[in-house]
Amino acid sequence: MKKPLILICNDDGVTAPGIQSLIESVRDIGDIMVVAPDKPQSGTGHGITINSTLRMQKITEEGGLTIYSCSGTPVDCIKLAIYKMEVKPDIILSGINHGSNASINVIYSGTMSAAVEGALEDIPSIGFSLLDHSIDADFSASKEIARQITLKTIEEGLPKGVCLNVNIPKLHLEEIAGIRVCRQAKGNWEEEFEARKDPMGNEYFWLTGTFKNNDHGEDTDIWTLENNYVSVVPVQHDLTAYTALSEINNWDL
Amino acid sequence: MKKPLILICNDDGVTAPGIQSLIESVRDIGDIMVVAPDKPQSGTGHGITINSTLRMQKITEEGGLTIYSCSGTPVDCIKLAIYKMEVKPDIILSGINHGSNASINVIYSGTMSAAVEGALEDIPSIGFSLLDHSIDADFSASKEIARQITLKTIEEGLPKGVCLNVNIPKLHLEEIAGIRVCRQAKGNWEEEFEARKDPMGNEYFWLTGTFKNNDHGEDTDIWTLENNYVSVVPVQHDLTAYTALSEINNWDL
Repeated sequence: MKKPLILICNDDGVTAPGIQSLIESVRDIGDIMVVAPDKPQSGTGHGITINSTLRMQKITEEGGLTIYSCSGTPVDCIKLAIYKMEVKPDIILSGINHGSNASINVIYSGTMSAAVEGALEDIPSIGFSLLDHSIDADFSASKEIARQITLKTIEEGLPKGVCLNVNIPKLHLEEIAGIRVCRQAKGNWEEEFEARKDPMGNEYFWLTGTFKNNDHGEDTDIWTLENNYVSVVPVQHDLTAYTALSEINNWDL
Repeated sequence: MKKPLILICNDDGVTAPGIQSLIESVRDIGDIMVVAPDKPQSGTGHGITINSTLRMQKITEEGGLTIYSCSGTPVDCIKLAIYKMEVKPDIILSGINHGSNASINVIYSGTMSAAVEGALEDIPSIGFSLLDHSIDADFSASKEIARQITLKTIEEGLPKGVCLNVNIPKLHLEEIAGIRVCRQAKGNWEEEFEARKDPMGNEYFWLTGTFKNNDHGEDTDIWTLENNYVSVVPVQHDLTAYTALSEINNWDL
């Protein structure tokens, strides 16, 4: 049987420990092609580069592992891999993200957008995130989880247009209670803009904020993570609010 | 009765003809606060600015119309308006976008992301787009449509977590067949990266591509627009693929 081809991306950049951990965790499963941003691209959402140019550079090619860095967003990376380099991956993995992509974070996340872009191309895709922002986060449990879910996804496949958003609690492997399939919790960020003055006396702002969970369901990713489980949310790119169709259809437009 | 407060944003930038048309079309309905990007931000998706700083500048303040430009993305603009300037809008309008945001374009669109961010904050929000990329597009029909749907939305409200994606065909008002509520068509972009060499001989790329509609349903936004109707798709920020939950729950994880 032919080895699967695994395309790997992230949003923390190609040098981040998280993507190195992801590569290591699936290194023996298949051939690996990495196309990842050359710098941090956190919070770029589903952004693409249309008003400026893109560059790519080959960094490594050895024994079934090829690594490219790209000047664009995670979604640019996936598009370049598929349409420019004509890579035909059996699976796309993104991450391991330094920090949570649970609840509404999924919508801001470059890591998850790479996975969503994969789903758009009908390729089974998974985004992995560890609930630890730190540069020296301990990815050892995440590596085991990522490997296990990747193998299962290669075996089972995914429904068309659906990718997986996997979040992993900041715990040792033996402390993790298990893996649960769940839904995205309703939540938002209460932002606080920190105002500063530049040396010329002009004001500028840093975006900071606090995540607020507005959802007390026990079937959500937030509940799941708070109870020491790994959360797996199937994510779709069809944004139609089907439940609202009939209500708005009743408007006299 | 107090006049409604209308917050306006876009992704083509504060000087674009589309946003000027939108302002004119609702100018007499309420007080208007514009917070829009100081430069084109097309294709920024749901991006936010977390690794660099933000600046804002007041451009206009006269008779119920206040205009700010912002160095960030459309989503940054909405966050700054709500959390920094503490604007409490009755409705958020985004656009009028120069070009379609039907089908999968919704996910790449900064214009629609501003509306989605409004929905996240439980504020009725609408993104408007005209199917004409041209800088000198004719917005006269779009202005009428935007005004009509804005008034109706103020009257009816919107379900929590839902905003509207309104696309308007490139037609004169009398040629438009009507307004239809519909779903997002399944489609994707087949990308073609145009490779060039810089003066130093190094390769760079421009992202270009062709939209491909993979959906022949007559209840989609693409069908609706092709048949000379305005399309209205209710859009949600809950990305959970509910139909896939049980299938993935059956995996032995």
